[in-house]
Amino acid sequence: MSTTGSLYVIGLGPGDPRMLTEQAKLALRQSQVVIGYTGYFAGVQDLVQDKECIALPLTQETARAQVAVDRATQGDAVCVISSGDAGIYGMASLVLEVLEQRTSSDPCPALEVVVVPGVSAVNACASLLGAPLGHDFAVISLSDLLTPWMLIEKRLEAAAAADFITVLLNPKSARRDWQYGRAQEILARYRAPETPVGMVRNAYRSDQSVTTTTLAQMSEPTVDMLTTVIVGNSQTRCWQSRMVTPRGYPIAETP
Amino acid sequence: MSTTGSLYVIGLGPGDPRMLTEQAKLALRQSQVVIGYTGYFAGVQDLVQDKECIALPLTQETARAQVAVDRATQGDAVCVISSGDAGIYGMASLVLEVLEQRTSSDPCPALEVVVVPGVSAVNACASLLGAPLGHDFAVISLSDLLTPWMLIEKRLEAAAAADFITVLLNPKSARRDWQYGRAQEILARYRAPETPVGMVRNAYRSDQSVTTTTLAQMSEPTVDMLTTVIVGNSQTRCWQSRMVTPRGYPIAETP
Repeated sequence: MSTTGSLYVIGLGPGDPRMLTEQAKLALRQSQVVIGYTGYFAGVQDLVQDKECIALPLTQETARAQVAVDRATQGDAVCVISSGDAGIYGMASLVLEVLEQRTSSDPCPALEVVVVPGVSAVNACASLLGAPLGHDFAVISLSDLLTPWMLIEKRLEAAAAADFITVLLNPKSARRDWQYGRAQEILARYRAPETPVGMVRNAYRSDQSVTTTTLAQMSEPTVDMLTTVIVGNSQTRCWQSRMVTPRGYPIAETP
Repeated sequence: MSTTGSLYVIGLGPGDPRMLTEQAKLALRQSQVVIGYTGYFAGVQDLVQDKECIALPLTQETARAQVAVDRATQGDAVCVISSGDAGIYGMASLVLEVLEQRTSSDPCPALEVVVVPGVSAVNACASLLGAPLGHDFAVISLSDLLTPWMLIEKRLEAAAAADFITVLLNPKSARRDWQYGRAQEILARYRAPETPVGMVRNAYRSDQSVTTTTLAQMSEPTVDMLTTVIVGNSQTRCWQSRMVTPRGYPIAETP
């Protein structure tokens, strides 16, 4: 089988179409088929109106990746759309995994596969909080759906002990209500109660909310799946409701 | 003193102007004064040709932040340009620190300060390597210019032990030649020798190079300040010269 399909995996950024890169727009324009979660199409309507749009609900990520690979191996120019950056907990790894499985049984189709980077939730939320990510940081998803909770705890402990600025994704959902409190507990063992914490919900969307608080007070009831929480390191300060992490440490002072 | 200056801090992305977001372009268009490292202006020439451009050499980051705050408090619309994402080890924290110092002595000038997110080296390099960042990750700069080396080692150890995908920035320079080897040593204590490692130099520039190798073999002589190195977690695989980190762990298997 010899085809010349192409497969772009792009990140749309946090929601506002002005956060799309030119390269992502180009990938959309060059595609015949656009595949993504139903909710993602609204922001890029003018870019996809002449395309075949395949919208699949949340939880059907694997199905989306499979349809994308099917269509691309049939010779179509296909674009998979993800929110944020497609490479950061996004569709890129799923698409490559499906491709890997296929090529282990079939001869490899002549596919061009391009992952287009985007502005992730991490970049977007940090910008709204000021400059929390001025130094080394760790990004941890609190969802234990596909990851054992013990490993997530180990990571929280490691990030806290080594003074990483700590970005918490998927902090809470209707079913997962205690993990966020546990994360706070672990971080509080290593960092001062007044450590600045930022919370951003629906970054760059019309219902955006940006809050700065402290480690001691971070258990807001409004924290949910759409919230990104950034806990500062030992050097992070709060200035006029913004978080600022300096690029370094005072000389001869190690936390 | 009451002025209505504005201060945008934007990230230009990895180098290719097609990676600029619309929001970043808008900030440039609305500015009268553009301040940045000399090398950053080439990629955005058509956007800044009617502006006052203040180009300052590398190492003069603080001077750039000070000039930017000076001009904005005088009432100008000022844009500070950074490579990558301005918030990730970028100019955003320096600019906010300078503002913080000023307002502690002067009455606060009426300044609009906006940090515009961008595609960081982390996002860009990951996309070129496939999908290495499909799970929790830690970003560590190996530069010990402003950070005690012992803390950097502690972070390497923590990231390695807790199975974080580990992104190494500033791995080596002419003066810092042993830190990268030390990082490899620490990671190798916790992760298999065949763990996939990706190296990207000059992402999305004409002289871009993308290499995948293993933890055992990552000490390439070409690694330098312009290289970003991504070390996979225990689940990362290499497939057709790409790194793929699955979104989760096999059930009941913790590293």
